[in-house]
Amino acid sequence: MTAWTLHPDRALPADPVTRPIAREIYEAVQDLPIVSMHGHVDVTAFADDEPFPDPAQLLVVPDHYLTRMLVSQGAQLPELGVGPVDGPGFESDPREIFRRFCAGWKHFRGTPTRYWMEHELVEIFGVTVRPSAETADQIYDQIAETLADPTFRPRALLDRFGIEIIGTTDPAWSTLDEHARLAADLPGRVLPTFRPDPLLHPARATWQGDLERLATASGIATDTYAGYLAALRERRAAFVAAGGLATDHGHLSADTTPLPDDVASSLFEKALRGSSDGSGISTAEESAFSAHMLFQMAAMSVEDGLVMQFHPGVLRDHDPAVAATFGPDKGYDIPVVTEFAHGLRPVLEAFGNSASFRMIAFTVDEDVYSRELAPLAGVYPALRLGAPWWFLDAPDAMRRFREAATETAGFSNMSGFVDDTRAFCSIPARHDLARRVDAGYLARLVAEHRLDLDEAVDTAADLAYHLPKLAYAAR
Amino acid sequence: MTAWTLHPDRALPADPVTRPIAREIYEAVQDLPIVSMHGHVDVTAFADDEPFPDPAQLLVVPDHYLTRMLVSQGAQLPELGVGPVDGPGFESDPREIFRRFCAGWKHFRGTPTRYWMEHELVEIFGVTVRPSAETADQIYDQIAETLADPTFRPRALLDRFGIEIIGTTDPAWSTLDEHARLAADLPGRVLPTFRPDPLLHPARATWQGDLERLATASGIATDTYAGYLAALRERRAAFVAAGGLATDHGHLSADTTPLPDDVASSLFEKALRGSSDGSGISTAEESAFSAHMLFQMAAMSVEDGLVMQFHPGVLRDHDPAVAATFGPDKGYDIPVVTEFAHGLRPVLEAFGNSASFRMIAFTVDEDVYSRELAPLAGVYPALRLGAPWWFLDAPDAMRRFREAATETAGFSNMSGFVDDTRAFCSIPARHDLARRVDAGYLARLVAEHRLDLDEAVDTAADLAYHLPKLAYAAR
Amino acid sequence: MTAWTLHPDRALPADPVTRPIAREIYEAVQDLPIVSMHGHVDVTAFADDEPFPDPAQLLVVPDHYLTRMLVSQGAQLPELGVGPVDGPGFESDPREIFRRFCAGWKHFRGTPTRYWMEHELVEIFGVTVRPSAETADQIYDQIAETLADPTFRPRALLDRFGIEIIGTTDPAWSTLDEHARLAADLPGRVLPTFRPDPLLHPARATWQGDLERLATASGIATDTYAGYLAALRERRAAFVAAGGLATDHGHLSADTTPLPDDVASSLFEKALRGSSDGSGISTAEESAFSAHMLFQMAAMSVEDGLVMQFHPGVLRDHDPAVAATFGPDKGYDIPVVTEFAHGLRPVLEAFGNSASFRMIAFTVDEDVYSRELAPLAGVYPALRLGAPWWFLDAPDAMRRFREAATETAGFSNMSGFVDDTRAFCSIPARHDLARRVDAGYLARLVAEHRLDLDEAVDTAADLAYHLPKLAYAAR
Repeated sequence: MTAWTLHPDRALPADPVTRPIAREIYEAVQDLPIVSMHGHVDVTAFADDEPFPDPAQLLVVPDHYLTRMLVSQGAQLPELGVGPVDGPGFESDPREIFRRFCAGWKHFRGTPTRYWMEHELVEIFGVTVRPSAETADQIYDQIAETLADPTFRPRALLDRFGIEIIGTTDPAWSTLDEHARLAADLPGRVLPTFRPDPLLHPARATWQGDLERLATASGIATDTYAGYLAALRERRAAFVAAGGLATDHGHLSADTTPLPDDVASSLFEKALRGSSDGSGISTAEESAFSAHMLFQMAAMSVEDGLVMQFHPGVLRDHDPAVAATFGPDKGYDIPVVTEFAHGLRPVLEAFGNSASFRMIAFTVDEDVYSRELAPLAGVYPALRLGAPWWFLDAPDAMRRFREAATETAGFSNMSGFVDDTRAFCSIPARHDLARRVDAGYLARLVAEHRLDLDEAVDTAADLAYHLPKLAYAAR
Repeated sequence: MTAWTLHPDRALPADPVTRPIAREIYEAVQDLPIVSMHGHVDVTAFADDEPFPDPAQLLVVPDHYLTRMLVSQGAQLPELGVGPVDGPGFESDPREIFRRFCAGWKHFRGTPTRYWMEHELVEIFGVTVRPSAETADQIYDQIAETLADPTFRPRALLDRFGIEIIGTTDPAWSTLDEHARLAADLPGRVLPTFRPDPLLHPARATWQGDLERLATASGIATDTYAGYLAALRERRAAFVAAGGLATDHGHLSADTTPLPDDVASSLFEKALRGSSDGSGISTAEESAFSAHMLFQMAAMSVEDGLVMQFHPGVLRDHDPAVAATFGPDKGYDIPVVTEFAHGLRPVLEAFGNSASFRMIAFTVDEDVYSRELAPLAGVYPALRLGAPWWFLDAPDAMRRFREAATETAGFSNMSGFVDDTRAFCSIPARHDLARRVDAGYLARLVAEHRLDLDEAVDTAADLAYHLPKLAYAAR
Repeated sequence: MTAWTLHPDRALPADPVTRPIAREIYEAVQDLPIVSMHGHVDVTAFADDEPFPDPAQLLVVPDHYLTRMLVSQGAQLPELGVGPVDGPGFESDPREIFRRFCAGWKHFRGTPTRYWMEHELVEIFGVTVRPSAETADQIYDQIAETLADPTFRPRALLDRFGIEIIGTTDPAWSTLDEHARLAADLPGRVLPTFRPDPLLHPARATWQGDLERLATASGIATDTYAGYLAALRERRAAFVAAGGLATDHGHLSADTTPLPDDVASSLFEKALRGSSDGSGISTAEESAFSAHMLFQMAAMSVEDGLVMQFHPGVLRDHDPAVAATFGPDKGYDIPVVTEFAHGLRPVLEAFGNSASFRMIAFTVDEDVYSRELAPLAGVYPALRLGAPWWFLDAPDAMRRFREAATETAGFSNMSGFVDDTRAFCSIPARHDLARRVDAGYLARLVAEHRLDLDEAVDTAADLAYHLPKLAYAAR
């Protein structure tokens, strides 16, 4: 077998008329810096700048795209190093975990995980053989050796990857201490994102404790609805002060209907009492309250200028037994039908034509691209259509997104490419793939004489770099 | 920069095997006459045959595809010449409006507006430079000069555009006077379409006034449910007498469930009383009543042979403040999930197998093509599947429509191409684009040996010309 | 006109870079045996091995894909040989029926019926002219002559078609006598499939009678809920003993929520009493009961190892008048919105991570591929994503399925190709077409350097042969 390499034209259209145009467009944007405003890399990686542990902990264990596929083919989570919440009982030998991943390489055919991982292994780690049970140890050793090199520490990789700016996701009660250190060392390069989800869902078991964390962090008592709002507002201001540009919201529904203040206040109090006496609030009441709080978040965004990222429509922890044993984010999160036209209406009626507001909406229900999100983003100046998210951040899904949304929303109403990952080393692969897919789409428009080549090159640069900068710019 | 021209192969597939086949199919149909049975060009344009006013009033101000995109990028409607309902306060200099449009040309990349407008500017007005802030005045002058030529008056353009027949959309209470004049001057060429929407939605503020207009036009008192039905029936007969071939219905839902007569009658009376004393009927009651009235319209179609065009699934005036200030049709209309399988069932059970009935169903929720509309049109002889509508009247969306619907419905159960526009000069561009996209789709079937070339050419002529004629032929 | 032939590259991608790769992949799998685990060919065809009657009865009358298209274009079912339930009054001359089909050949352009039928006529029957009113008799005679040949009897065709194994669909109360004969003559080649649908829907008029059939077949009284469950369990065991590998379930909804035993039991009793005294159970109660019974079927599958095939989401007999006159399966079955994420949750929570359970889920609502089914199949080991079903078993729909589902579920979580037809002679055409479409999809991945050629060939063989064998293997 010949050496495993990356083809320079990978992910570009095959047809011989379109490919050279796509290559020309791609080459014009391939080296633009990376703007990575939404992700889940732990801020401590950059703050402490310690070497990454081992190949399995870096590439396999925390990546639920990857572990879920192996589970679907019969692996047990503990065999992949994913431990139960309350104890040991999982594989601790990273080499063994990595072998299981390599032995399952076949199952990733046709998935973006395969594509990204191939890019990472070849481009970052210099691997030259295809993963398999036979090659696992050789690949493991090569990655481990590379990780020992000081030029592969997190901050060095920011440079190597060409990342101009990266956002982390931080709980509302975060002290932002690490970000303070980073602001001193790498000014403007690693920014916090305000994520208040658990605080906006009062039926969750963790709510009461999280409220207390919020009170501690803000110095404002959260035992009244007014105090709760004030504490949230205080934390948002702290994020702004720490360089934050955005908030992030992951709700089951896209509903943003506000409640009258007294109703919201009494739901808050009912939840607070229920949290101690066990009565709680109903699911329907929680849904109404969290929709109301999305509206409040939008209203606060108009005040403080934080861009509101909205990621609704995922039924988390579809198998509650897995969540109880292994915790959240283990691959059992399933998209559901998501309605935006009515759901976003209250926020858009109130703030959709305001230059002080910016919402970026993401979806994993691709039906809404042409039916709802492109028409909404194509008229409301405050709304930008986010890049294909999560399961849709994949070559064919990205192409479908362009084809479904562009004809109604154009390019200027989009966020440009936004990755969303906890797999740090996949970031360059993800951006590179997006640039290739966009180059292919634009090349088809050129080949079909629907766009001129200079326009296509200009648009490719917008999608790769300028639109994300613009979408997340302070209001 | 070289002169701006239209490429002869534009919108045909890029791949070198499929393109020459597509070109051959397209060339066989490109000069067929245009049948434009559904549109919103004002009948007075043809009746009075006055010259079009100026480039901005012709091409920019009334085209909500175009103004909505500029609004989404920060323009204010008044800056684009769109005035508040009750007064002045908007840009009145057409040259200034046209400059704003040209300066925003970039934002239309990838949209059908860009494609159609390029066709219009080059083909109709002989423009040779790309629109931009710099070229705006030059283009404006050239269009203005062209419009002054008597061969560019509306009736002359019917000939220039190759329009064999065009439908207008007229309120049920229209006197049809202009159509009488046109029937004398241009027999069978400009036909009225019966549009009763406001009369079928009793919760609208305008309903009482519209009922009175209906009474005046029909000479039948509309203060009872029986009178209301009789008046509608009288107006339908008047439209038939004036050459009308079709009705048109734009409802939020596709529900067609009939009510018992006494229930319908009492809802009518409740709405009528409520309209004067302010009590009104509920939203749910209005929905039930308007669904009932769709069933009545279908029943009347069986009697009088008018083809029933159905355009459901758009949430109109998503931002009510914009509607209150600027009126309807300003770009704030958003598609919503639309259910046809249950919705159309009452009408199809009753009339779906009748040779006396014809419904053409359109959608802006493209999910229903393969799931519902193609299966329904593929068995009920009375149902035809309409062409991709509104946001979906675009190259990639049209291709998706063919791919999603043809395998189940075939071609014979489709309406062929139907445009839907108030932008008169875009009609030839829209038909030409549809012919190109269909040629591309058919060429792929030929290239994949799924259809013979002679069949493809025959089908292309059906889609462009014969099927629309057939779909709208008197029952 | 030149002779009508099948192009060797039909249904492969047109572009000159991808086609030769597709051809290479296709050629590697074209001769693999056919595994046809889900279908509706009558078991008596194989048990009795009588010659097929005539061309119309073989190819036209029982094929609702075909008759529905002719009905949509104005034919009456009786003209096509489809008789009313209770009597004569339909065309009995097969030649006349065949003429009507050939005269309507144009209407099938672009549909899979056209593609399959062309394959059958040319490849199986040696037809060399395109069907039309003029050629109908010539084609009829040629087919009739072929059918008279003993090598065209059903069992001989199993060999000719390369069918290694074929499943039939049998009511739960089937004696399985024919299968006993076949097990002796053709061991392991024709297998029964347990289909209990009518027994799980207590509001159907036939329910009481079917319960009695179940009691007779099982020898267990079905007048209590416990007896009913025991009788179902007994029949499942009989199917297992007869070589059955799977069950099959066609429900309107994908809901699988179990009820408490006492609630299920009392609904059963209410239905049983209602069935005699006319009171019955409500539609909502029936829905709850049939969802509960799906859960019971899954639980029994864990016990007995039968693979659970699930085909929800079709509104049967959309026009009840047609069903009353002509019976079910006459082309008036329409897909509806189908929700799987919540619907399957109870069964997946209970058994989704069990190695003893296997469900294969099919859909005619293609929206759920990327949103729900691929994410579910991509994590739960017990769930496999079925091949595109019914209206979606068509070239472009199959391609959309691959593009929508593969990036999230990979190939290993799919069933591979599964046909679903009562048209025996279409089986080789359907498998051949699926192999071609998959070769085209895989070739694109190769041409885009997203997959290596050896991987593509290996995957094509999985999809065509190994995955179906594996998906239906005994647990």
